[in-house]
Amino acid sequence: MKTKQNKSCVKKFILTPPTLEDNTADADRLIMAMKAELKADSVNIDFELLKKLPGLLRESNYNVKCIIYKDLERLILAGVTDSRKNQIIAGMAIDLGTTRVVLRLLDLESDKVLGESSFDNPQISIGPDILARIHFADKNGGLNVIKGMIIDSLNLQIDALCRESNILPQQIYLLAVAGNTAMTHLFLGLDPRWIIREPYIPVVNRPGIIKTKELGIRVNPGARVLVFPNVGSYFGGDLIAGIIYSGIANKEDTSILVDVGTNAEVVVGNKNWLMACAGAAGPALEGGVTKMGMMAGPGVIDRVAIKPGTCKVEIHTIDEKPPVGICGSGLIDLAAQLFLSGMIDIRGRFVPSVCGDQLKEKDGIRHLVVARSKGKNCDSPEDIELTISQVDLDSLIRSKAAMYTILETITMSVGMSLQELSTFYVAGTFGSFINPVSAISIGMLPDLPINSYKSLGNSSLGGATMALALFDCMEEIDKIRNNITYLELNVNQEFMNRFSAAKFLPHTDPLLFPSVKVFS
Amino acid sequence: MKTKQNKSCVKKFILTPPTLEDNTADADRLIMAMKAELKADSVNIDFELLKKLPGLLRESNYNVKCIIYKDLERLILAGVTDSRKNQIIAGMAIDLGTTRVVLRLLDLESDKVLGESSFDNPQISIGPDILARIHFADKNGGLNVIKGMIIDSLNLQIDALCRESNILPQQIYLLAVAGNTAMTHLFLGLDPRWIIREPYIPVVNRPGIIKTKELGIRVNPGARVLVFPNVGSYFGGDLIAGIIYSGIANKEDTSILVDVGTNAEVVVGNKNWLMACAGAAGPALEGGVTKMGMMAGPGVIDRVAIKPGTCKVEIHTIDEKPPVGICGSGLIDLAAQLFLSGMIDIRGRFVPSVCGDQLKEKDGIRHLVVARSKGKNCDSPEDIELTISQVDLDSLIRSKAAMYTILETITMSVGMSLQELSTFYVAGTFGSFINPVSAISIGMLPDLPINSYKSLGNSSLGGATMALALFDCMEEIDKIRNNITYLELNVNQEFMNRFSAAKFLPHTDPLLFPSVKVFS
Repeated sequence: MKTKQNKSCVKKFILTPPTLEDNTADADRLIMAMKAELKADSVNIDFELLKKLPGLLRESNYNVKCIIYKDLERLILAGVTDSRKNQIIAGMAIDLGTTRVVLRLLDLESDKVLGESSFDNPQISIGPDILARIHFADKNGGLNVIKGMIIDSLNLQIDALCRESNILPQQIYLLAVAGNTAMTHLFLGLDPRWIIREPYIPVVNRPGIIKTKELGIRVNPGARVLVFPNVGSYFGGDLIAGIIYSGIANKEDTSILVDVGTNAEVVVGNKNWLMACAGAAGPALEGGVTKMGMMAGPGVIDRVAIKPGTCKVEIHTIDEKPPVGICGSGLIDLAAQLFLSGMIDIRGRFVPSVCGDQLKEKDGIRHLVVARSKGKNCDSPEDIELTISQVDLDSLIRSKAAMYTILETITMSVGMSLQELSTFYVAGTFGSFINPVSAISIGMLPDLPINSYKSLGNSSLGGATMALALFDCMEEIDKIRNNITYLELNVNQEFMNRFSAAKFLPHTDPLLFPSVKVFS
Repeated sequence: MKTKQNKSCVKKFILTPPTLEDNTADADRLIMAMKAELKADSVNIDFELLKKLPGLLRESNYNVKCIIYKDLERLILAGVTDSRKNQIIAGMAIDLGTTRVVLRLLDLESDKVLGESSFDNPQISIGPDILARIHFADKNGGLNVIKGMIIDSLNLQIDALCRESNILPQQIYLLAVAGNTAMTHLFLGLDPRWIIREPYIPVVNRPGIIKTKELGIRVNPGARVLVFPNVGSYFGGDLIAGIIYSGIANKEDTSILVDVGTNAEVVVGNKNWLMACAGAAGPALEGGVTKMGMMAGPGVIDRVAIKPGTCKVEIHTIDEKPPVGICGSGLIDLAAQLFLSGMIDIRGRFVPSVCGDQLKEKDGIRHLVVARSKGKNCDSPEDIELTISQVDLDSLIRSKAAMYTILETITMSVGMSLQELSTFYVAGTFGSFINPVSAISIGMLPDLPINSYKSLGNSSLGGATMALALFDCMEEIDKIRNNITYLELNVNQEFMNRFSAAKFLPHTDPLLFPSVKVFS
């Protein structure tokens, strides 16, 4: 993420003041300097900024800092400040998640992080998933309501973050926003209805660089927001941001980038080509299906171990609070440990002879007690049993099989095997908690050397941050977007065959997972 | 002014509707079609238009008309309509005069004029000249007040003109505005204070193509206004529009274009080069100095004849009403006839022996009675004498000498003589009333064959109209602006010598005016 100084969005200009011999207009004087320095065809100056320019130039004695984004061959001037005043010039990177929105405030000159905050996407009150929100937006006035929710929250959070960081929102000149296609539409107030209806058409793939005041974002009145483009309805700007952040599009070697979640979004490629696809891996991977599954939070089981030969499930909970549920990474750990200890078989079925009395049957379905707890409500006198059922396991196995099949399909589509990939990037907050050894053990991820797995953390936020550090980042973004070939995942017989083979633990073909050894 | 059909600002597109195999986003689908058809690097779609696009495309079954301007390599989409609805798509050309504002409403598809109107610039209430207005704008809030005056009036007049023409203001998608540099600044709400202070710096020379909603003009919300660029503080967009209208920049032969008024703005050139200058010719030419001088209107003397040998001044008045004053073209006629009839000499002095008892002396200054009238107030029982004084004549001669000297200087600066010019274009409403024979007789304009003089009428409005007929007119405008070399008129000894020589009627060198023959 190192930035060359000359790539900064903030540029200093010392202009020669006008004379009778050189009576170029104020704007033209600045535009000429910008074009000469930054090799661009034209410069766009916001009208309100144009009004202030004569005063700004004269007060600063023609010694100014310009805040600049480049869009195609055009420079966009978002602001001009007096070079001699040492005021922070800030930018804001935004990861516009369906569930959670994360903000990062940056000093655009030093690239220093001034502060970070996050908040639950207020649109959750309409519906936790994007589908419910799109249906809501469809109704009369719904689009404005749901757009207003995110914009209002952003304004509040920007204000708060600025206060904490001792700057004013007016000092924010550039923003970069990465979100999936639907979230981006709702953020922009664009009708998302055609995204979910055949043939699945977004309003726009490349919103470009937009004036914040057109969106109602209260920062500097001239500020612009770079909106990450999408490839289509099911491959959004958050993933383009992830590709930027991972750097796979700059490498000679071929890498893979996977955003693990309800949808598995996958990119395979290198500096010459990129192949992408997205497919439903099933909510089980996020812990959203099992009865005790929940989002990460205090008391949620995030790590599981079973000592070989003991069948005793040892759990770790977040903040080491009494257990209240299990999150996705905990679930993957649990399944891996159950399998390695022989408590479930190669088909993911409980082995009663191994599980012993921890296995119970309710309504004809087997449940394994994972932990006992007083539950969330500590006043409750009764113990709560946290269990995992055969249904939960079956669901997890379908999800992991779908994930592996998607990875295998996209890699094979470019004539490679998974084993040939040099680096395996796991993106997303959830992805960063997955233990690759466990994911390999159940055959969700391929059996690559552990050090080839790299967790990127919040790669959308990372990509958005990078976009604030490079005045011409849009060029790289466009290049990546244009380089992506989108692979439609056809659920044909071949896909189904691969899927069936992947429904075993770790796989019907154990040669694909040489490192996975069941405790014996 | 003939326009090639493919140059129209309104383009039809029949798009292929999306399918699962071709699920390009709505905006990208239209952008791709526009880029392919019109050879441009990028397309700018207004954000509000983007919001409406999905509906528009589907309702029209992907059969749309796009209203497009081109700015540099970028297409600007001002509007999209359903091709199958036969609604007029209109444009508005505006001549933004210091004194008078003229509007012309056009059908952008047929280039047919739908209506015209004009109104006094309401800023006259602040001051008749631009200087007073700039000082007013300097005061706290003054700029907004004076900008609001012109915008409010424009909105009212646009509404009225639309009503008369049976269209709605929402049907206006493109505007083109031509005004001098100061008027353009006041129209845009840009601080004009530095225009009149050394070293005379406009805020911007090339305002470009602006959203009407940014200016508060109430037409279609997506409409754009092309603002003619200026060359500097004293050579404005009205003159660039005049150059476009005259066509001099497309000709092999070298022509001259003169806007005759208080300021003489002159362009000499051809398709390879353009040389421009502006200089004060003095208000006498517009009839603004003489006691009986006034703007053209009913009862104003606009033509004068003196039958050889009679000394009897025969007048013609506008609308043939009783005489109330004299306008600029009448004054030039009068001076020419006085000179040709021997009533004034080569220095412009009254010849008492010829003038006879029509010559009177008031306060030691000679006055010649031109007409007698009941005056404006017809109830007045007394006759009013309309007279021209020696002071008036002296002032007129200084003005005509300045005009001729400017014409001579700019022509000599390119190594030519005035006689070598193929066409002499006279621009401006006032210019269109000047009788070239009279102007030549007093040596204000050079002694060229009468048919080489062409009156352009309102060339600013003509140029603005042309800008609405060509989607890429900005290219020609930029080319012209970049081709212009601006000649600073240095009032040095050589200039003064030429000026002194031109203070005679028609000139100290009669060989320059072979056609001028005093009645004998």
